[in-house]
Amino acid sequence: MKIAIAQLNPIIGDLSGNAQKILEVAQQAAANGVRLLLTPELSLCGYPPRDLLLNPSFVEAMSMNLQQLAQDLPANLAVLVGTVEKNAQAHITGGKNLFNSIALLENGKVKQFFHKRLLPTYDVFDENRYFEAGLQANYFTIDNIDIGVTICEDLWNDEEFWGKRNYAANPIADLSILGVDLIVNLSASPYTVGKQRSREEMLQHSAVRFQQPIIYTNQVGGNDDLIFDGFSFAVNAKGEVMCRAQGFTTDVVIIEFDAAQRDLQLSSVTPASTSADEEIWHALVLGVRDYAQKCRFSKVVLGLSGGIDSSLVAAIATAALGKENVLGVLMPSPYSSEHSISDALALAKNLGIQTQTIPIGELMQGFDHSLVDLFAGTEFGIAEENIQSRIRGNLLMAIANKFGYLLLSTGNKSEMAVGYCTLYGDMNGGLAVIADVPKTRVYSICNWLNSHQSTVIPPHVITKAPSAELKPGQVDQDSLPPYEILDDILQRLIHEHQSVGEIVAAGHESLVVDRIIQMLARAEFKRRQAPPGLKITDRAFGTGWRMPIASNWSAIKNTYKINSGLGIYI
Amino acid sequence: MKIAIAQLNPIIGDLSGNAQKILEVAQQAAANGVRLLLTPELSLCGYPPRDLLLNPSFVEAMSMNLQQLAQDLPANLAVLVGTVEKNAQAHITGGKNLFNSIALLENGKVKQFFHKRLLPTYDVFDENRYFEAGLQANYFTIDNIDIGVTICEDLWNDEEFWGKRNYAANPIADLSILGVDLIVNLSASPYTVGKQRSREEMLQHSAVRFQQPIIYTNQVGGNDDLIFDGFSFAVNAKGEVMCRAQGFTTDVVIIEFDAAQRDLQLSSVTPASTSADEEIWHALVLGVRDYAQKCRFSKVVLGLSGGIDSSLVAAIATAALGKENVLGVLMPSPYSSEHSISDALALAKNLGIQTQTIPIGELMQGFDHSLVDLFAGTEFGIAEENIQSRIRGNLLMAIANKFGYLLLSTGNKSEMAVGYCTLYGDMNGGLAVIADVPKTRVYSICNWLNSHQSTVIPPHVITKAPSAELKPGQVDQDSLPPYEILDDILQRLIHEHQSVGEIVAAGHESLVVDRIIQMLARAEFKRRQAPPGLKITDRAFGTGWRMPIASNWSAIKNTYKINSGLGIYI
Repeated sequence: MKIAIAQLNPIIGDLSGNAQKILEVAQQAAANGVRLLLTPELSLCGYPPRDLLLNPSFVEAMSMNLQQLAQDLPANLAVLVGTVEKNAQAHITGGKNLFNSIALLENGKVKQFFHKRLLPTYDVFDENRYFEAGLQANYFTIDNIDIGVTICEDLWNDEEFWGKRNYAANPIADLSILGVDLIVNLSASPYTVGKQRSREEMLQHSAVRFQQPIIYTNQVGGNDDLIFDGFSFAVNAKGEVMCRAQGFTTDVVIIEFDAAQRDLQLSSVTPASTSADEEIWHALVLGVRDYAQKCRFSKVVLGLSGGIDSSLVAAIATAALGKENVLGVLMPSPYSSEHSISDALALAKNLGIQTQTIPIGELMQGFDHSLVDLFAGTEFGIAEENIQSRIRGNLLMAIANKFGYLLLSTGNKSEMAVGYCTLYGDMNGGLAVIADVPKTRVYSICNWLNSHQSTVIPPHVITKAPSAELKPGQVDQDSLPPYEILDDILQRLIHEHQSVGEIVAAGHESLVVDRIIQMLARAEFKRRQAPPGLKITDRAFGTGWRMPIASNWSAIKNTYKINSGLGIYI
Repeated sequence: MKIAIAQLNPIIGDLSGNAQKILEVAQQAAANGVRLLLTPELSLCGYPPRDLLLNPSFVEAMSMNLQQLAQDLPANLAVLVGTVEKNAQAHITGGKNLFNSIALLENGKVKQFFHKRLLPTYDVFDENRYFEAGLQANYFTIDNIDIGVTICEDLWNDEEFWGKRNYAANPIADLSILGVDLIVNLSASPYTVGKQRSREEMLQHSAVRFQQPIIYTNQVGGNDDLIFDGFSFAVNAKGEVMCRAQGFTTDVVIIEFDAAQRDLQLSSVTPASTSADEEIWHALVLGVRDYAQKCRFSKVVLGLSGGIDSSLVAAIATAALGKENVLGVLMPSPYSSEHSISDALALAKNLGIQTQTIPIGELMQGFDHSLVDLFAGTEFGIAEENIQSRIRGNLLMAIANKFGYLLLSTGNKSEMAVGYCTLYGDMNGGLAVIADVPKTRVYSICNWLNSHQSTVIPPHVITKAPSAELKPGQVDQDSLPPYEILDDILQRLIHEHQSVGEIVAAGHESLVVDRIIQMLARAEFKRRQAPPGLKITDRAFGTGWRMPIASNWSAIKNTYKINSGLGIYI
């Protein structure tokens, strides 16, 4: 029996458009003799639909589109479509109004619904906000083959593999007891670095443990901060990878289930990615392309400072949208170095993108003049530094507004963490492209890019000391520890939830750790107002980072008191 | 037996400070012969602690503070403290690591833990993200009185009262079957308009239904976007209100449980609020005061346009922090009317606050000059309007940064809904004071204020046509329907999830409804970057509003196509 994996890129909420995509793949699959077509989790509405699900007319429209799609599909093709089903008993039994579901469509009808059993409520996931958990193992029979049906998280509870249980039930174990021939999974699993390897190792373990072939169908594409990487795959009952779809692009893979052997046969196996830098690059290119296109922008604008962050973002944007659709704006001040211009122009030349240069010296004088009385007797400080950044932010937004461009912001994760950035200044933008990429990773991606392609990032951009150039002679390391140290401390704080004691025990200076913790907490108000940032790690600032602003937890026991500097709103 | 309700205002994460507050109230209560002291939900860490709970050292510190508090408390006083308890079985049974708990402290010991059973996962609540639900009814015995213990949401599932069941269990019913003498509830229930009446009606119903006296202890204070209104109260077994604490301030109320009658006796009953305008006023004053103080600001700054929104926010800030701590900044442009200055100065005089005036005409010319080549051949439009707003935003932030003031933003809910505001301009600020207050409500609060106090808001501010004054002769109603119509449509869309058909059936023009829906969806990217806004309704933009940005659901069936204007990032 031929089974097709449709690795689709839906637009959130575009029910008829997404149904049309499923229909087109179904027609192609039917023409190739496919009997069963798999699509991603919530393929009809796209994942995550978020609070659109609270709108009854949205749910109603989804149901209508599902019925219509069932009628439109080719005969002799069974299709699994991700959708929601109403929980008719909710008001009586207590519980959420919807099930995160898969519908089996066949011969013009919606034949059966299956409900997701394990609902994630960590990181970016809020599934208990909308959904009631399904209580039973799901399967159906087609051509005498029993096929177990699971949805995304349903696979992520193999207590042997993880060394602990995350939910009470293990749907794979339940299906194995029922003796199904094959387990299929419809997923929308967001990208993080190295996640594809985790998925495959996990399912290889489960396949061997339960002697079950498993087909994993993932969504692909960028939806706001989330990037879905695709890389759908299948493992046979021995845990061997029998097919792998491409990463970071739509794909359709056909795989044969051998009814006699009760197992999957080898199909096309796209090589897995081998380099984290390469993987992140492709993820970010997809994230920018999809955010722009799904918001209906064709062109983007960004500030080019000659620094490494804006250089990388410009390269990503160019790869995503084409050099003719990227405008770089140079906005030198009297504090700008000569190389800030020459490096930015060299980058633009390498990329083939247009630039505009708008010096900001006169505008700085204008603000100085406007504030001269009020600021009399005070010294040049952070207020004046921020004015420069906000002049640039205003100019960039003026260009974005005038010409209908999307403004990309260029801050990295290290500076977002410690607040080394100006709110309403360089933080401005519709999308924060590298907000989840630590500075040390920015360097390694640029080095990978230059070695992989021709030299895109001018070497001087990589070798010079990073600087915001907001006052004469300023470099980042006046205010921050070296990025290797900063990024390691941040990794331990943000990702590993380590205590001060643990971080100091790992070799960091206690005073430095204290200071970074303080800066991390203080910058919360800035991050709250940041644009969506493309997520590439398991703990990004954004929808999965939910911290109070007005709070007083320091994580520094005994010795630490928050000083009055917390009140300085920069 | 004397029972005290401690209606406390904790600082999120300030474990030792919050423990100290509990200790002080406990000492005072013991001196008054109190036997049992009640504190709010999670009183040790403050509600909501959010992702601080993911930090093991935070949880560990909470446990240590709890043990210490138990030792410090006076003898012969039992105290219920809101805290977390680790779920020791989580890795074996599957489930979250913590229970949202109440600890019974007595005679130097932590004697018992009780677990919250119903975990809210709607609106601003994410309790399944952190907590496992308790499975059993909680009670303890003191002086031969059996006291049932519930936490906040545990009371909110009376299917008779609501006409539907929200959760499988009803903890009140379970406690009633066990035959407890009294039910206590520790809550952190955020304010929304009219919510106190709902709480009392609900508990009056449950008290009568189960013949159970109930004591309801609420948190008070502002924590970021959430305002907790206090108004703790108790009902006897007949459903009569036996005590009510004050609203919007800390309070301690002592009430007698009559062991012979097995019921509560009458204590002090603060009058309930009678006017929504008054209630909202007090809520917003508290919200501003606490956000400023808990972030360690003593002074605030805001732009004064002479319009009604900034006038109301200035009045709120003055009431919250004192007239000497509020700075109003007038930033007239060549498009500003004369009354924009005179009205703003009249308001400042009424409030007794300082002002500064910084004309922006020259800065506007500076931007025009900087962009003259790039914008050649284009017409004055939204880009130029936004430049003005962003110049003002830059000036305000410069003042905030220079002097360590908190900038308050002044946009109302109606304009946040339709995007009639400038990102990085008038949206700038650390706190959006009236972001959940519709424009029509802004008027009614100002009218209430003027009739309640002396005339604070100059009458001309209330009577003149609202205008952003970003181009000559501009008024809001050039771009928006009258606010009465706009606010009614928004109420139906945002709060009642009505379809276009339902809204049109209620008497609105279909074209107007379509346009408002389009504007609401388009403005999502702006709202995502807005500062926290004080929540006063059951559906505020902010943590409880989780919409996709890059999406294509219009709610307008058939006829509606999103036009290319969606791409214009303003």
